[in-house]
Amino acid sequence: MNMPTNLEISRNTRLAPLTDIAAEMGIEEKFLEPYGRSAAKISLEAVKALGDRPRAKYVVVSAVTPTPLGTGKTTTAVGLAQAFSHIGKRGVLAVRQASMGPTFGIKGGAAGGGYSQVVPMEALNLHLTGDMHAVTEAHNMLSAMLDNHLHKGNALNIDPFAITWRRVLDVNDRDLRQIVTGLGGKANGIPRQTGFDITAASEVMAVLALSTSLQDLRARLGRIVVGYDRDKNPVTAEMLKAAGAMCVILREAIKPNLMQTVENTPVLVHCGPFGNIAHGNSSIVADLIGIHAGDYLVTEAGFGADMGAERFFNIKCRNSGLVPDAAVVVVTVRDLKSHSGKYKIVAGKPLPEEMLAEGPDDVFAGADNLRKQIANIRLHGVEPVVAVNAFPTDFPSEHDAIMKIAADESVRAAVCTHVVDGGKGAADLARAVAETCDEPSSYHTLYEDSMTLRQKIETIATKVYGANGIDVSPVAAKQLDDYERCGFGNLPVCIAKSHLSLSSDPTLKGAPTGWRLPVREVRASVGAGFVYPICGNMQTMPGLSSFPAAERIDIDADGEIVGLA
Amino acid sequence: MNMPTNLEISRNTRLAPLTDIAAEMGIEEKFLEPYGRSAAKISLEAVKALGDRPRAKYVVVSAVTPTPLGTGKTTTAVGLAQAFSHIGKRGVLAVRQASMGPTFGIKGGAAGGGYSQVVPMEALNLHLTGDMHAVTEAHNMLSAMLDNHLHKGNALNIDPFAITWRRVLDVNDRDLRQIVTGLGGKANGIPRQTGFDITAASEVMAVLALSTSLQDLRARLGRIVVGYDRDKNPVTAEMLKAAGAMCVILREAIKPNLMQTVENTPVLVHCGPFGNIAHGNSSIVADLIGIHAGDYLVTEAGFGADMGAERFFNIKCRNSGLVPDAAVVVVTVRDLKSHSGKYKIVAGKPLPEEMLAEGPDDVFAGADNLRKQIANIRLHGVEPVVAVNAFPTDFPSEHDAIMKIAADESVRAAVCTHVVDGGKGAADLARAVAETCDEPSSYHTLYEDSMTLRQKIETIATKVYGANGIDVSPVAAKQLDDYERCGFGNLPVCIAKSHLSLSSDPTLKGAPTGWRLPVREVRASVGAGFVYPICGNMQTMPGLSSFPAAERIDIDADGEIVGLA
Repeated sequence: MNMPTNLEISRNTRLAPLTDIAAEMGIEEKFLEPYGRSAAKISLEAVKALGDRPRAKYVVVSAVTPTPLGTGKTTTAVGLAQAFSHIGKRGVLAVRQASMGPTFGIKGGAAGGGYSQVVPMEALNLHLTGDMHAVTEAHNMLSAMLDNHLHKGNALNIDPFAITWRRVLDVNDRDLRQIVTGLGGKANGIPRQTGFDITAASEVMAVLALSTSLQDLRARLGRIVVGYDRDKNPVTAEMLKAAGAMCVILREAIKPNLMQTVENTPVLVHCGPFGNIAHGNSSIVADLIGIHAGDYLVTEAGFGADMGAERFFNIKCRNSGLVPDAAVVVVTVRDLKSHSGKYKIVAGKPLPEEMLAEGPDDVFAGADNLRKQIANIRLHGVEPVVAVNAFPTDFPSEHDAIMKIAADESVRAAVCTHVVDGGKGAADLARAVAETCDEPSSYHTLYEDSMTLRQKIETIATKVYGANGIDVSPVAAKQLDDYERCGFGNLPVCIAKSHLSLSSDPTLKGAPTGWRLPVREVRASVGAGFVYPICGNMQTMPGLSSFPAAERIDIDADGEIVGLA
Repeated sequence: MNMPTNLEISRNTRLAPLTDIAAEMGIEEKFLEPYGRSAAKISLEAVKALGDRPRAKYVVVSAVTPTPLGTGKTTTAVGLAQAFSHIGKRGVLAVRQASMGPTFGIKGGAAGGGYSQVVPMEALNLHLTGDMHAVTEAHNMLSAMLDNHLHKGNALNIDPFAITWRRVLDVNDRDLRQIVTGLGGKANGIPRQTGFDITAASEVMAVLALSTSLQDLRARLGRIVVGYDRDKNPVTAEMLKAAGAMCVILREAIKPNLMQTVENTPVLVHCGPFGNIAHGNSSIVADLIGIHAGDYLVTEAGFGADMGAERFFNIKCRNSGLVPDAAVVVVTVRDLKSHSGKYKIVAGKPLPEEMLAEGPDDVFAGADNLRKQIANIRLHGVEPVVAVNAFPTDFPSEHDAIMKIAADESVRAAVCTHVVDGGKGAADLARAVAETCDEPSSYHTLYEDSMTLRQKIETIATKVYGANGIDVSPVAAKQLDDYERCGFGNLPVCIAKSHLSLSSDPTLKGAPTGWRLPVREVRASVGAGFVYPICGNMQTMPGLSSFPAAERIDIDADGEIVGLA
């Protein structure tokens, strides 16, 4: 591809005034708070003000199980949102905010790519309007108040060995994963082992993303459990008198950010919770605005449909009350070839040579993963649409293979070239999505609140992941019992497992059967409102590589950014 | 005082549109980037664009040696800037940004007070435009790249025991002062002892405040010394290839923030470096804009004149090339009574009863401190003006006493009631300052670059602090030699000592004589461009109190902030 870089495309985009973008969405200027020249916050009063406008169709973009190189889910979501204007409709996009740690680590950016990106990409990838930093600040305020409570006499009788609350920073810094704090004598606090996670992994981020209003945010912050007292009762942020200050710190951050795509399509950028230990979806408040701001609200859910879409249906929509009308399953030729099990893809290394040769049979050999993810969407009463994210290196026979698999499953499908062609490259997809949305949605959650946590885990493992059952470790069993005792049993579950396989073993490709999900331990994000079983090694603080992206990022003689990919 | 709270006054202020404020300053709208509805960033292109406009008089607001309760320096600076409009002139104010740690710790806010405050105070005290967070992010990016360098083979041969670079967070968190990072095995980095400072204490903050342009910022970041290699050579951020990414992270933060006072006087809010281990002044770029944006540019320097003003003259003006025309020395009755040595003031406890009784003799008994701080201003060829910051509990005889002391020193003086009366309460002060500024300034730095570091410390200690000499510990002597060897000998010095005394002993009031300054150790902020000897116990990470302000801060049923003092 002899294409300009993402940064070049972003910089050459003619931005529409955000007031025009907002006007198109039916949002009055009085609800806009400009932040710099390329982003604006939208007051939450807009939620009510837009309430009488027609409801948009609600479309979630998910994917097959990705390779370590990703599937192009964000670019497809951007492309689809842009494509609606090419079929005479108005699309609105809602996506997560990029995390700065990975921006300077390995990725270099997370705003889509090519002619399907959110602009200006440097604003999205850097501080934007500071929401990520507000989460860092609110989280660490609670950490400081917790340790201060211990230091000042521990009136709540907190068990220092039962503290689960850590600290966060939006930096890839492996040395902060496990630390000892409070050294140097009594004046410096009480020594104990703890650590830092990346800000995207903060429960505060998940809380912000799942809140439906400022008052709901305040209540959820108060419910955050930081640990347990010596009688094994949960200790909350409310008990530490920290939730009010945290809410004040997040008072601006709860307002969604308005940006635009390279084709001036409206984009709501808001929140960025992790996709494994959290639900991996952008905010509910953004969707509450977007759902009345166009004909189609397109949003993206992290990782494959077994993870992001499952949480979208069972955690996000459960909280928001919004009903999805269609779900896109993005797939690439590379993905299905990888699911054939014949190739091993390692991030940062070139693809195996043979994988680049024409190979429709390899695509068919990996079809089971796509079939299973299609079924996973239908499990929730929602109709899938397959989006083939075309690469210039693909062969038509390979695209045909994917279209054939979709047809066999009676699923609408389209080949998309939005990265090089922008919205018009996804016009077929937009038409397929529109047709699907014209049919009534039978959306429902997969399980009832009233089921036990164990039953909920088992339901997802067997129905969504294709496991034979679950193996709960003694530690996890005790934790599940404790959580039920503490009254957290009615919460949905967010299973933290590898995103590189439908199973918990990242090396198993396709749609593995005959395996059981090992539940090693279970944690609870009570404020956010879910319990998360840990099934595998979850890294909540990335490290930098030998050659971090940060080494290449700089300003030039004119003060312009270089090296942001 | 039956006055509304700062938050109430702030909320009841009718804000002028920032475009109007900017227009008054001669700043075209194209240079403004709105951030929310109450603050805007000013593009650095404005520095050049304003260059042809007349130069304002440049006034620094300093003080006597404060008590732990402060002297009201910020309110006086705000009041003075406002007062110019009451004498037919245009004032512009340049102040530091508040640190969030103390806001939620003990102070509750740092935007001035009463009818002399910067509004909206909640914006100033919370994230404002995110500059503080950008400093946190840039600083910790360097920390992560440093530890990553050790982890990936340490090609620069850095001595892990000679690393001076720590991490920062804008939270009062004593437990982070001394920590061990890198625990949990090889994948988590290399264990070593380190810690966190509060963001205001970051060298990156000092770098940002002292930079004159984006390119100068880039160069200074590169010169930051993070530690030493095994051959005792300095290791810089440039060598770690981190300075470019840091500069990109700070690309928006280098733009000053425009706000206003309760009387709609323009305010440039920018940077907040510590006043002991750093120079404690707002940014140079803000002053480069403000100096062409009105008749008088008023700025504030941290702590007493021996500290903030000395650094303003010898570090900030040395870097900026701007020449100060006058220096205000703020003093309260309470301050001079305290300097009589008869009373002990403890933060958080009520004042001694007898101190509140009418006591002009006590004021005279504390006069030496005011006399010495007046002399300290004149040491730099600048003419002082005494501002008596009046409290409703003061007696006229006490104000007369201060006016008499000033008259004895042939210094212009005025009693100010700006907290209750706004700008008109400081009109007399404005007139006195204006008269002073009409005389030519003989400003000069106190010492030459070419002097040794030891000579520079001795000069400040004997001439400004009134010491008989300095006692350099063996450790400090070695460090001074090393810094001279490394080529840092030409830098100015920033002496970190108690701000509660002219001496290094916080219990010594008045103007102590017959003492020697003990130099315990010496550190270098090479990027910022100063060496800082440590003369006493310097706390660079505050802790929370037993009843932190955060416990009282919350949102009410309408979503409005309560408890921010």
